[in-house]
Amino acid sequence: MDLTGLTTGLNTFWVLMTGALVFFMQAGFALVEAGFTRSKNTTNILFKNLMDFCIGTIVFWAIGYGIMFGAGNGFFGKFELFSKTDHGAALGIPNMAFFFFQLVFAATAATIVSGAMAERTKFTSYLIYSAIISTFIYPISGHWIWGGGWLAQMGMHDFAGSTVVHSVGGWLALTGAFVLGPRIGKYKNGKINAIPGHSITLGTLGVFILWIGWFGFNPGSTLSLSNPELVANIFVTTNGAAAAGAIATLIVTWLRYGKPGLGMTLNGVLAGLVAITAGCDTVTPGGAIIIGAGAGIIVVFAVELFDRIFKIDDPVGAVSVHAINGAFGTIMVGLFAKGDGISGLFYGGGTSLLVTQIIGVAAVAAWTIACGLVLFYALKHTVGLRVSKKEEENGLDYYEHGEKAYN
Amino acid sequence: MDLTGLTTGLNTFWVLMTGALVFFMQAGFALVEAGFTRSKNTTNILFKNLMDFCIGTIVFWAIGYGIMFGAGNGFFGKFELFSKTDHGAALGIPNMAFFFFQLVFAATAATIVSGAMAERTKFTSYLIYSAIISTFIYPISGHWIWGGGWLAQMGMHDFAGSTVVHSVGGWLALTGAFVLGPRIGKYKNGKINAIPGHSITLGTLGVFILWIGWFGFNPGSTLSLSNPELVANIFVTTNGAAAAGAIATLIVTWLRYGKPGLGMTLNGVLAGLVAITAGCDTVTPGGAIIIGAGAGIIVVFAVELFDRIFKIDDPVGAVSVHAINGAFGTIMVGLFAKGDGISGLFYGGGTSLLVTQIIGVAAVAAWTIACGLVLFYALKHTVGLRVSKKEEENGLDYYEHGEKAYN
Amino acid sequence: MDLTGLTTGLNTFWVLMTGALVFFMQAGFALVEAGFTRSKNTTNILFKNLMDFCIGTIVFWAIGYGIMFGAGNGFFGKFELFSKTDHGAALGIPNMAFFFFQLVFAATAATIVSGAMAERTKFTSYLIYSAIISTFIYPISGHWIWGGGWLAQMGMHDFAGSTVVHSVGGWLALTGAFVLGPRIGKYKNGKINAIPGHSITLGTLGVFILWIGWFGFNPGSTLSLSNPELVANIFVTTNGAAAAGAIATLIVTWLRYGKPGLGMTLNGVLAGLVAITAGCDTVTPGGAIIIGAGAGIIVVFAVELFDRIFKIDDPVGAVSVHAINGAFGTIMVGLFAKGDGISGLFYGGGTSLLVTQIIGVAAVAAWTIACGLVLFYALKHTVGLRVSKKEEENGLDYYEHGEKAYN
Repeated sequence: MDLTGLTTGLNTFWVLMTGALVFFMQAGFALVEAGFTRSKNTTNILFKNLMDFCIGTIVFWAIGYGIMFGAGNGFFGKFELFSKTDHGAALGIPNMAFFFFQLVFAATAATIVSGAMAERTKFTSYLIYSAIISTFIYPISGHWIWGGGWLAQMGMHDFAGSTVVHSVGGWLALTGAFVLGPRIGKYKNGKINAIPGHSITLGTLGVFILWIGWFGFNPGSTLSLSNPELVANIFVTTNGAAAAGAIATLIVTWLRYGKPGLGMTLNGVLAGLVAITAGCDTVTPGGAIIIGAGAGIIVVFAVELFDRIFKIDDPVGAVSVHAINGAFGTIMVGLFAKGDGISGLFYGGGTSLLVTQIIGVAAVAAWTIACGLVLFYALKHTVGLRVSKKEEENGLDYYEHGEKAYN
Repeated sequence: MDLTGLTTGLNTFWVLMTGALVFFMQAGFALVEAGFTRSKNTTNILFKNLMDFCIGTIVFWAIGYGIMFGAGNGFFGKFELFSKTDHGAALGIPNMAFFFFQLVFAATAATIVSGAMAERTKFTSYLIYSAIISTFIYPISGHWIWGGGWLAQMGMHDFAGSTVVHSVGGWLALTGAFVLGPRIGKYKNGKINAIPGHSITLGTLGVFILWIGWFGFNPGSTLSLSNPELVANIFVTTNGAAAAGAIATLIVTWLRYGKPGLGMTLNGVLAGLVAITAGCDTVTPGGAIIIGAGAGIIVVFAVELFDRIFKIDDPVGAVSVHAINGAFGTIMVGLFAKGDGISGLFYGGGTSLLVTQIIGVAAVAAWTIACGLVLFYALKHTVGLRVSKKEEENGLDYYEHGEKAYN
Repeated sequence: MDLTGLTTGLNTFWVLMTGALVFFMQAGFALVEAGFTRSKNTTNILFKNLMDFCIGTIVFWAIGYGIMFGAGNGFFGKFELFSKTDHGAALGIPNMAFFFFQLVFAATAATIVSGAMAERTKFTSYLIYSAIISTFIYPISGHWIWGGGWLAQMGMHDFAGSTVVHSVGGWLALTGAFVLGPRIGKYKNGKINAIPGHSITLGTLGVFILWIGWFGFNPGSTLSLSNPELVANIFVTTNGAAAAGAIATLIVTWLRYGKPGLGMTLNGVLAGLVAITAGCDTVTPGGAIIIGAGAGIIVVFAVELFDRIFKIDDPVGAVSVHAINGAFGTIMVGLFAKGDGISGLFYGGGTSLLVTQIIGVAAVAAWTIACGLVLFYALKHTVGLRVSKKEEENGLDYYEHGEKAYN
């Protein structure tokens, strides 16, 4: 192979292999959501996690990819059924490599929602809203930031998708859980009841799988190995933020609840990973640890806030992990950016990047919350969003699928 | 490194890393087979899955590799104990890299069989037949297609092994399940009883692991990154077929049984993956989706056929997934091939490729069914193929291994 | 990209991707240790496995990395808080890539200890000793062999860390289990009671994950793809030793206990992998199989020795797998080395290498056992090493974390 062939071959390998790791995150989400919920709903939650990826594969290919990356204008990419435009050429990789990589990202956003809406959502409604997310909602705001849209033009920096992927999933999860209402028994006679999941082992394995998946998610977003220093730094910032998130959550739960809690600490890992995603390319290892630790603290209080104050029942903490820490991490870029062409407030970059980041976070939150409310209310008043009381009490596995998870 | 060194380094990395993903499929098969069977036989089925790889490692190295790739004639490669011939040189990679890649493929074929014969096969017999498969049966038909044998000379196209790997495993599974007979209680008083597995969670995780493993299996079969477009296309066709398989099975089970079933849909994913394996390099993404969807439909009816009509008890559906869809996918190449140097009937290639594919499928089916019958009857009448009634009823874990899976 | 850029890009990709596989071993260890212990202590053991990596990430970065690789003298690397010295440059990769790779190795050593001390160690003490291992104990002996220290200067060969990583973890595990004493009920009235783990399924999945992780551990230790033959050979020797270890253990347990045991055979796989790690680059495939088989035999008798004669309660067999077979594998290099620049006794290299290997093994054993005794006795007499009798009997999950693993 010649220099050009080697370069294309190497970068294609890089994008596809890191994309495969991101694909594996689907297994991680499935296990975390199954582990953190009850065994009577396990078949259902696993099935949802499987199908959102399968449906996302078809609809993102047919419609979403074109909307997200098509030229279009600042708000929408040009619609093109089964986009034939080559979006890989400018990156020096095959279009299908770039498509696969973007597909697994789109599927990540979609899969986040199922956790917050677990144990009470109709399977049919799930399939519908999951398709709509991957077809329209995710690609449109994605276009704003990664498709050359208005936020990209303003200079918003969201390297691997704290906002594009995680906040989008997280805000949709929030509206879904809100429209759906809490699980039976969660809030009763003014009391808040914890509903423990059926297997912390599954949850832990899921988090380890998500963690290794993030070594695809963040470094792979370079789409190239032309800057090995950058790629290596991203491994270190990503890993450092995850570790710092866990340690921070460990300390906070220990101080606050008297005992170190594994369930919450697992969310601390994820919070750190979500938060570092926007700036993993530009912050220092030290900055990554501060951001990760911040995320690990925030996630504990965010979970309390939604659970105790807002009484929004999010069985796995998806809103606190993905929406809140996606926003937090994106904003932190405005403070801690130092490299890869940008500078945050703490490194002499002034406030303009910080303001842009906040605008981006707010715009995407507004967009996805609005979409979510319309979508979930529309479903509620048509096919119905929630299973019957009897079905919920006896478990979705038997009624929706006729298949118990364990025998 | 110079151009030659870089090329060899890159391609070696590619082959070994995708090979490692294929190795990981062993874990996927182990979990699927364990999850779909009862907890009293879990130690046994996990142990079998572990040992077939370990034994395969030794025997394929000592004998199988030489038979499969040695020059020889159209039917058998030249026998050579611990083959020293360098089969990698022509491919521009080290012989040991090619060997490792081929080893993990051989082990895949062997491991398929255990699922169909689960919950009643003697451990000793399992070790014996597993060794014979990896030593002789798989390498001989493999030689016909991948070792320059008579089917290769006819122009048969089985890129990553729908037939070479999956059908071989699947037909052997069929004969094994047939010779062995059904599990106690499966067919009683003219009634067909479902025997549910003990954990759909394990099954689902297993399928996700197999799916990511397939991103090694199919793209890795290029053995080179010299054509990045091709490699990227294979990721997309592989993934698309899996997704389409799942969606098709979901719809069929929903319509046919009134409820969407996860167990069968997981088999729909695998059916799509098996079917696309032969033509993943040559079909379009659209073709891949059609093939995958076809596989997802076929698997449901195939499972019914073997279970209800033929009364062959295949606890995990291995025959329907691997034998039937391996054959289906191989034949579909004759219709949908469009690229990588060949054309199917739908793309102006005439019927010759289709006929060749059918001949190849039939020849391999005949070979493996014949071998399977001889092998399993021979075992039945010597060391014995099946455990005692008492052992089967109380579980193989206790009697064969003295170790229960769960405490 | 030009030749230099491609070379750096390719090698960086190699080091980071194999490093990610080594990271995944954390999940493997977590599952093995959880599966081999009782469900009342599952949250605790998973939590420990998670936190040792998180804490290790911070302390190895802050202190350990500098001590291990800093110039210094033959015994200690130069201390440098948050080492800024570029240890990657000489290797042609970014410093952060080398750091990440070394970090996941350090974390492997630390995580080995938790298994031997499972089901009775205080969580607080665990966090403290885990930090001390990654900060000081591992980096100091690591400096001797991999940091240019006195054993490196003597010519000791430990390619991927049979001694540097596994024996260090294993000897510390031994001293920890010794100082801690056996679990309640393990040795009672002169009887030795087996305490079966709660899920062999988790154990098996864990071993498969460790096995694929080892395809990062050993081949990645080349830190470069400049010698593709070598890299491919390492895949084959690593895999062959694992397979041979399993087969040897299977046979030994069958002969000795009357039935083939899965739990012990899983340890046979790990024993083979640990033993081949030192010499995976220099032994032939045949040599690897002999070493692996030897390890598979040794592990059975080592487990018996510690359990029955020494009455040291090691719930997962960590000492036998990592300490004993780490030592065994390192010494075998002195006999079987044949390539990568060295020769063992059997290949005309004389006894000097063998003697050096034995000195290295003994020195590291002495160092880590001494450190372990000081560390664990110090903890015992300050914060306390062991939970209360009541806590141990009722399970650490409830008392230490207020979270049961399963509901």
